[in-house]
Amino acid sequence: MTRQEFREWTTKNLVILDGATGSNLQKRGMPSGVCPEAWITEHREVMRKLQQEYVDAGTNILYAPTFTANRIKLREYGLEDRMAELIHSLVSISREASAGRALIAGDLTMTGEQLSPVGTLDFEELVDVYKEQIVLLDQAGVDLLVVETMMSLQETRAALIAAREVCSLPVMATMTFNTDGRTFYGTDPATSVVVLQSLGADAVGVNCSSGPDTMLNFVREMKKYAKVPLIAKPNAGLPGINEAGETVYDMDADTYVTHMHALIEAGATILGGCCGTTPEFIRKLSESLPDRRISFQPAEPVRLLASERKVLAFGLNERFHIVGERINPTGKKKFQEKLRNADYSMVRSFAEDQTECGASVLDINVGMNGIDEKETMLKVMDEVMAVTPLPLCLDTSHIDVMEAALRRYPGRALINSISLETEKFEKLLPIAGKYGAMFILLPLSDEGLPKSLDEKKEIIQKILDRALTLGFCREDIVVDGLVTTVGANQKAALETLETIRYCKEELGLATIVGLSNISFGLPERSFINAAFLTMAIQQGLTMAIANPSQDLLVNSAMASDLLMNKPEADLAYIHRMNARKADEAPTPITGPAKSAEEKSEQPKV
Amino acid sequence: MTRQEFREWTTKNLVILDGATGSNLQKRGMPSGVCPEAWITEHREVMRKLQQEYVDAGTNILYAPTFTANRIKLREYGLEDRMAELIHSLVSISREASAGRALIAGDLTMTGEQLSPVGTLDFEELVDVYKEQIVLLDQAGVDLLVVETMMSLQETRAALIAAREVCSLPVMATMTFNTDGRTFYGTDPATSVVVLQSLGADAVGVNCSSGPDTMLNFVREMKKYAKVPLIAKPNAGLPGINEAGETVYDMDADTYVTHMHALIEAGATILGGCCGTTPEFIRKLSESLPDRRISFQPAEPVRLLASERKVLAFGLNERFHIVGERINPTGKKKFQEKLRNADYSMVRSFAEDQTECGASVLDINVGMNGIDEKETMLKVMDEVMAVTPLPLCLDTSHIDVMEAALRRYPGRALINSISLETEKFEKLLPIAGKYGAMFILLPLSDEGLPKSLDEKKEIIQKILDRALTLGFCREDIVVDGLVTTVGANQKAALETLETIRYCKEELGLATIVGLSNISFGLPERSFINAAFLTMAIQQGLTMAIANPSQDLLVNSAMASDLLMNKPEADLAYIHRMNARKADEAPTPITGPAKSAEEKSEQPKV
Ligand SMILES: [Zn+2]
Ligand SMILES: [Zn+2]
Ligand SMILES: [Zn+2]
Repeated sequence: MTRQEFREWTTKNLVILDGATGSNLQKRGMPSGVCPEAWITEHREVMRKLQQEYVDAGTNILYAPTFTANRIKLREYGLEDRMAELIHSLVSISREASAGRALIAGDLTMTGEQLSPVGTLDFEELVDVYKEQIVLLDQAGVDLLVVETMMSLQETRAALIAAREVCSLPVMATMTFNTDGRTFYGTDPATSVVVLQSLGADAVGVNCSSGPDTMLNFVREMKKYAKVPLIAKPNAGLPGINEAGETVYDMDADTYVTHMHALIEAGATILGGCCGTTPEFIRKLSESLPDRRISFQPAEPVRLLASERKVLAFGLNERFHIVGERINPTGKKKFQEKLRNADYSMVRSFAEDQTECGASVLDINVGMNGIDEKETMLKVMDEVMAVTPLPLCLDTSHIDVMEAALRRYPGRALINSISLETEKFEKLLPIAGKYGAMFILLPLSDEGLPKSLDEKKEIIQKILDRALTLGFCREDIVVDGLVTTVGANQKAALETLETIRYCKEELGLATIVGLSNISFGLPERSFINAAFLTMAIQQGLTMAIANPSQDLLVNSAMASDLLMNKPEADLAYIHRMNARKADEAPTPITGPAKSAEEKSEQPKV
Repeated sequence: MTRQEFREWTTKNLVILDGATGSNLQKRGMPSGVCPEAWITEHREVMRKLQQEYVDAGTNILYAPTFTANRIKLREYGLEDRMAELIHSLVSISREASAGRALIAGDLTMTGEQLSPVGTLDFEELVDVYKEQIVLLDQAGVDLLVVETMMSLQETRAALIAAREVCSLPVMATMTFNTDGRTFYGTDPATSVVVLQSLGADAVGVNCSSGPDTMLNFVREMKKYAKVPLIAKPNAGLPGINEAGETVYDMDADTYVTHMHALIEAGATILGGCCGTTPEFIRKLSESLPDRRISFQPAEPVRLLASERKVLAFGLNERFHIVGERINPTGKKKFQEKLRNADYSMVRSFAEDQTECGASVLDINVGMNGIDEKETMLKVMDEVMAVTPLPLCLDTSHIDVMEAALRRYPGRALINSISLETEKFEKLLPIAGKYGAMFILLPLSDEGLPKSLDEKKEIIQKILDRALTLGFCREDIVVDGLVTTVGANQKAALETLETIRYCKEELGLATIVGLSNISFGLPERSFINAAFLTMAIQQGLTMAIANPSQDLLVNSAMASDLLMNKPEADLAYIHRMNARKADEAPTPITGPAKSAEEKSEQPKV
């Protein structure tokens, strides 16, 4: 099945998955402690019968029993050398059970080993483990892939990247959340759908986790941002232990079906069961849905960034956001020295400070001499992610560093930046597409700064056109208003303001500016920066790269949002000002947290 | 002659006045120390012959020799009871000399007594003195009036007001400037033309003062703002004493004529001579101008306010202005007490502080209980004018107080304010017209605040239409954007910003806002006020009523002007910031000069 066929089918029809495998096999004789893949191949009839019952009950997609058929898991049983044989055998059982009546999904899950920096497994090793499994599944003839029961967003990303790099099969991905609505690693449903769909998952959802009742909120959260069909594959309620010492689930098939209808109402269209469900559950679900036709409604277009733990959604008329600029060694000798010595204490304190001061995104730039930029970038990202839930803006002029960072970043990043400069334009746009990142469109070309406002608009249009052709949408792009120095060009501010208006009103694009250039060479720059930011917000600016510990700047931005009557801006202003009053010492206006080094920064382009 | 006929004539033709009277009469036998009016009536033939020579030389307007024929001057010679007889006799000499070939101007000048507060003469007494002289001149049949050799703008205003209240004759007014370009009382040429033409002078200019060479700059300065024809009536160069001990002037007739052509080039169209000039000068001037046709070009429309010493000219795209709001007792207990005790020390310090802090205009409001508001207003105006050259914005809700203040104010004031409230609309508009003031159009009606933006626009349009009908031009009006509280109406800022845009872009009107209402009830109001001001400036705001010692507010405004690329705004910003750095103590941002009392002000409408 092609991805396009999968999309056509799943956006026009409700799809019924199967129910539990493990809990049913245990009831039918599989002892605990064995390798399931080995046991199944030794008891093909049991498995074939269970899956036949599912197909008879109405299942449209059977999950092949290849769940833990990966090198790391099989190694626990000393079976890694039999992986190819096992996978072929397991898939053939499902094919026999289906007899052409259902599609077969190659099933993958977590390996049980933790990724670094928490564990020792390297991200690329994990990608390779999944590639190996996926290649074998593809060879065995599965119609699509499902990555399920995932408690780690990053491991899910590894599987998705692996799939995209070795096959062209559709991929469904389902996460498992605790009752607090977060995975074991802290990812919430909204974040998972944002990150996985932008990385190319063809359907995203939830499995296992809980009963269908508790799952309702997870699906609702996902639906807000879902551009792909949503999967709901819940357990049969909550687990308990019966008199015989067996695990049992507390929900019967009829109750399950009732709750599944609520999940459909909430937006789930690919439906099945997990632990505790049986062919009866699937049959009753199937019978309750005589009409499978749907008209899939993707979420309203909205700009979405995400860390591993948090989504940042923003529109064109919402509150202004600051991208914290401080993690950047330019002009900061002390910071440079620390980076050179692999001392990340300043990285962490910059990240913490900026988070506390209200930044919405953190820019990460480690461009300097005397370090391995790629290695430092990955290291700094890990350090930052350990102390802040904010999404990152990856800022490097080296394409290999950008690709490494995007590949590793367990969220949806903002690329800083893509211009019309040949190298960036040709190479970075496809890379941004592959990893599903948003990007800052910087209106520069091989000739440097645009000579006029018209040329600036032309460059923006060219990059936009190309991006749309490559499958990006307007919500994936944030245009840099390209602030130059008013001391050098008296119309600098007016031209940037017009660029912001043009992008927002005529192109429907979000905008960003770097503030500090505007006032370069003038005295008391903070007042100019604050006034410029206020004007830019009035003109429709979406975000700025700035130092969020500049009190005047942030207060001005928040006052501007309030005056523009943006949602919740009044409460945010009052909240900030009350917190500010509560602070022991009043902070001088010119930016206390900015070191002398930072003040001396040169204008950047 | 009607004012309309005068206008038609003087805007289509060069007009030749006469030359000197006094210096020629002295040469022809008038001794010094005598009353000129009495001597002339006793030597009618001498005067008649001199004036015949002028008419023969080409004079179009003869000045009747009634120069000091006013009650105060004549009283010095004990001749005040003969005033009527003298004036009739003097005018009849000119009529005989003219024999219908030239118009006769009734001539007035200063009385020699100084007005209070410098001298003891009350302004209304002086108006009455002039009224008496003008009524007699009118009865004697003069064709127009000329108020000349005026060293006091306020005394010239008294003569103009007198003329307007007792006759309908055209009035020409000429001031005399020292070589530094200021009158004895400190008025410059630009200020005099702005104030006198707005008060209804039909032609304005310079006489005596100096030779025609030095006069060139005075005329040029006037031409910048002149909407009426300009008069140049210079001396024959500089005075000296000859061997015989007589006063002689150093310029001959040919040189004089050459310089007079430069004055014509500079914009003077009503031309004559003062001390030292003779009928020969006028003849040579007349012969040098065979073609008298002109096409009068009034100055480009521009908004003009003036004190007695300074013009404030502003367009719609120039630097932002602050109207200092501090001279207002509302909410200030201590200030109220001082005013009640006629202690004006705080008035003076508020005026000085606001001038130093960069206000362009000072608002004067003395509305409070327990005082005679009219008397206090006039007193406060005197005190303020003694310490600052800034023009005033007269702020009272009582029509009688407003009229008294306008009548006395020796500049061109800004009225705060005229609304559609019946009483104000009906009575204040004509009063504003009579005294030639600019006014703030406040979009309120008898029903109070407009209920919607549309209603606000309708009210603005109604007042504008009426004002245009009454002879105002768009440059006479500044619309109050009517700032309400964003805490009460979340769209308050957006609605005011739209009002500013509408007035500027669609109606061509200047705008003003009172800033403090916007943030009423919110914490840390200064940031909201500053951001709102920045947005308003971006939208085209012309001026704001504010406290100019609020550092953040003024810095934001100046930064905004700089960003908007307004003329000279960069230099102004750099200048202010360098001055600020030079100050010993940095001032906290939330407004050090604002007392606790001022902070507690209620929102005003
Ligand atoms: Zn399960
Ligand atoms: Zn003279
Ligand atoms: Zn001051």
